[in-house]
Amino acid sequence: MQLTGQQLIGKHIVTAKGEPIQAVNPATGETLVPTYPAGGEAEVNKACGLAESAFDIYRETTLKDRANFLESIASEIESLGDELIKRCMAETGLPRARLEGERGRTCGQMRLFAEVVRSGQWLDVRLDPALPDRIPVPRVDLRQRHIAIGPVAVFGASNFPLAFSVAGGDTAAALAAGCPVVVKAHSAHPGTSEIVGRAVQSAVAKSNMPEGVFSLLFGSGDVVGKALVADSRIKAVGFTGSRTGGTALLTIAQSRPQPIPVYAEMSSLNPVFLLPEALKARYNELAEGFVLSLNMGAGQFCTNPGLIVAEKGVALDAFITAASHEVEKCVSQTMLTPTIHRAYQNSVEALSNSDKVRKASNGQLSKGPCQCQTTLFVVSMADFMSDKALQTEVFGASSMVIECIDFPEVESFAIQLEGQLTATLQMDDGDLETARNLLPILERKAGRILVNNWPTGVEVCHSMVHGGPYPATSDSRSTSVGSAAIQRFLRPVCYQNLPQELLPQALRDDNPLGVGRLLDGERE
Amino acid sequence: MQLTGQQLIGKHIVTAKGEPIQAVNPATGETLVPTYPAGGEAEVNKACGLAESAFDIYRETTLKDRANFLESIASEIESLGDELIKRCMAETGLPRARLEGERGRTCGQMRLFAEVVRSGQWLDVRLDPALPDRIPVPRVDLRQRHIAIGPVAVFGASNFPLAFSVAGGDTAAALAAGCPVVVKAHSAHPGTSEIVGRAVQSAVAKSNMPEGVFSLLFGSGDVVGKALVADSRIKAVGFTGSRTGGTALLTIAQSRPQPIPVYAEMSSLNPVFLLPEALKARYNELAEGFVLSLNMGAGQFCTNPGLIVAEKGVALDAFITAASHEVEKCVSQTMLTPTIHRAYQNSVEALSNSDKVRKASNGQLSKGPCQCQTTLFVVSMADFMSDKALQTEVFGASSMVIECIDFPEVESFAIQLEGQLTATLQMDDGDLETARNLLPILERKAGRILVNNWPTGVEVCHSMVHGGPYPATSDSRSTSVGSAAIQRFLRPVCYQNLPQELLPQALRDDNPLGVGRLLDGERE
Repeated sequence: MQLTGQQLIGKHIVTAKGEPIQAVNPATGETLVPTYPAGGEAEVNKACGLAESAFDIYRETTLKDRANFLESIASEIESLGDELIKRCMAETGLPRARLEGERGRTCGQMRLFAEVVRSGQWLDVRLDPALPDRIPVPRVDLRQRHIAIGPVAVFGASNFPLAFSVAGGDTAAALAAGCPVVVKAHSAHPGTSEIVGRAVQSAVAKSNMPEGVFSLLFGSGDVVGKALVADSRIKAVGFTGSRTGGTALLTIAQSRPQPIPVYAEMSSLNPVFLLPEALKARYNELAEGFVLSLNMGAGQFCTNPGLIVAEKGVALDAFITAASHEVEKCVSQTMLTPTIHRAYQNSVEALSNSDKVRKASNGQLSKGPCQCQTTLFVVSMADFMSDKALQTEVFGASSMVIECIDFPEVESFAIQLEGQLTATLQMDDGDLETARNLLPILERKAGRILVNNWPTGVEVCHSMVHGGPYPATSDSRSTSVGSAAIQRFLRPVCYQNLPQELLPQALRDDNPLGVGRLLDGERE
Repeated sequence: MQLTGQQLIGKHIVTAKGEPIQAVNPATGETLVPTYPAGGEAEVNKACGLAESAFDIYRETTLKDRANFLESIASEIESLGDELIKRCMAETGLPRARLEGERGRTCGQMRLFAEVVRSGQWLDVRLDPALPDRIPVPRVDLRQRHIAIGPVAVFGASNFPLAFSVAGGDTAAALAAGCPVVVKAHSAHPGTSEIVGRAVQSAVAKSNMPEGVFSLLFGSGDVVGKALVADSRIKAVGFTGSRTGGTALLTIAQSRPQPIPVYAEMSSLNPVFLLPEALKARYNELAEGFVLSLNMGAGQFCTNPGLIVAEKGVALDAFITAASHEVEKCVSQTMLTPTIHRAYQNSVEALSNSDKVRKASNGQLSKGPCQCQTTLFVVSMADFMSDKALQTEVFGASSMVIECIDFPEVESFAIQLEGQLTATLQMDDGDLETARNLLPILERKAGRILVNNWPTGVEVCHSMVHGGPYPATSDSRSTSVGSAAIQRFLRPVCYQNLPQELLPQALRDDNPLGVGRLLDGERE
């Protein structure tokens, strides 16, 4: 595929005139062709106009046609072959195996959402038939289904150039719900975005979907991002990125004449609690597991274990020694972008210079640009809680052991935590009561609770919650990973006393879609 | 019951020291004893502290115990007997039959939510069992349930002194979800609020619930309301009232260090579209039905039909004549408060003085304070759309006929509408195609669509959506009436690889609660 650096607006290819965006190979520092002249308000306007025109048609496509369309996107991405992987490697510094896995996940989640669409459970059909003889007043016929909320703006994430970017989880969930999508490509991987965007364009055409169902814009957050979220035709926003970025979008969305929901996945420290018995019995094994998780993808995961929390003492010292040993074996990895690398270095330097923090160990540093040197710090619970700067997520392979004086201090730490994507317990049988006391605290802090696992590696399934209280996300009532993500882009509509001919198919007496329904509150 | 004018905080009765609130009988103008000294930050702090202490216990009460508690609230309210009705009549000017009906609805919705709690469907249990042999990577055991979001602040509404006040829909939904509730009483009916509040207090004690599960505060929106929504222990807000009030709460909630969801039901014009065939065939019958709905409860319903939209011509003229005739027969009714009455008078006067608007008719005006004189206006679609002031909800029995030049103008009107709670089609068989074209437009504007019914009268059932796009509500993804309202106060949590002993009951292999579950995406 010849990359052209143009905006993909509906079925059109549009040359924009803004300041050019150019990808940099973080492993070599070389810039990559082509350049992507940034779009502006004109491009946003055109994409949103097409999305609006497509909406009423697209949201009423049959379950089968829509599911086939999602599957067609997956097939188109797969048929891109190695070109996609190579470009993505060059733009992100991520290794082949990881990107091949991520491509599998991306196509897998499109197919999962296709299944979800087909099942029709997301329609949440409810029927309360008329009760003409009810005393004191009769009941009229009432039926409910969920409909798509409207065109959705999706922001590509830097750290998942495939699975949370152009055809990633947010796009899949929105398309599944019946919402046209306008994607703002992440400027770190424009080539990857264009390649995937063209695959989606091709699936739109082959599936006979209205062209406005998908557009891909290149441009800055300040211009294209803001204009997209402010556009009256956009009815929801999906975003994965920094707390600063997410809250900026929230502010725009809330200041609109018609405010809209923003699903921003922003920041998380992902505390891991080492419970006493497990720590005593398995500090070596825990240290190995921890550093493996910490180091995965140069720590550039939302669920990276950024905090280890335990009672201080001999066992924790042994864990720190073992973990330090593991960290020292780590070879540095290329980070996603020079900017991310610079931020990582600055954060690690600030922690190293802090009076309150002790550096336990660091990994090896290879030559070359953008190298992430794994680093482990130790800090007391009291010092950590006294300093807001220490509580900020460090994006990269840096983690901090929180030493607590006793177990009540561990509980107090949990209580004081901000919202998190995950919270993990490492425990043995003897820790059961301790875990039982921590669990209710952690349920209120995190979207996902793990036992004897590590938080990196997010399964795309029906039970997954990749979400959590603020500031982990801007909306704790939802998940951005897994099939329940479709619910973010739906709203309920009630139909009162409609004749059969006027009812949506899902609500008709003869149930032509064959979907599961709630009849008078009971599953049919 | 001796009313004391005190705050009900947990099981305590607290004398506050703020400026006293005193109810006025709107029908007579007389003030009613006792006075209610306003609470302040100390009372908010105490109520929120108790709610926080109660939360972890209450949210894990058994489905049975919690359901019984809700039913006990209903029984306690019923056992108040006529005292409640009499005080409520005096404070609101609403007639006995209406309030007896509303009491039935209030207790009915408590009992509906008790059934909802027992069924456990709201837990939305999902299980994705481990797949240890999956290629390329195994899947670990993942399970999801929903948990209560946290203590909820509920604002009593003026227009439903029972069904959307102290023990109203928001309180019922929040308690059902497992959330302690702190209610701010509406200052128009403090005595009614105290009576109901004491019934809830009694149910809390008899059901052995933790006392903090319910508190009732009296005070101003500016002090108690703001402090409640700003309190870090409050995790969601339920509100029914004005657009100004709702957006003020939204702003506070969004400015918190941890923003929280606000479910504000704010304003709606509830357009009724008279389709050509129905209008031609049934203008008399439509006029009668319309004025009956308009006049119900002196028009003080969120779903009051504030707009009639139709193509101008002989049939619409005949409708206006017939409706005017009906309006002229209307005897004025007492409005809820002097403030609401003043606002109604000002709005009607402004409309009467507008160059763009023609007054078609008004009802009879009885002597006495706070009388709502039913009024019908007529305006052209172009004039209506050109003047924002005309588009504001008039709270009371005033409605406006929108004359459109032709049917495309009716459609254009629908497209330009803001978000609504309801949209209604009056149609005959010959209008089917016209209705079919309007329906997708209206689905995007309203939470409930009616055919050949009138929007007043909101059934409390599983299919009901009392919600809609902004400014009808602040969150179109939810309903404030009906069993689905429970979802507003829940959030999902995923449990990864937890031992059976640590799993919440709902998620255990042996399913001790017997709740419906989603196993690998399929209903068990």
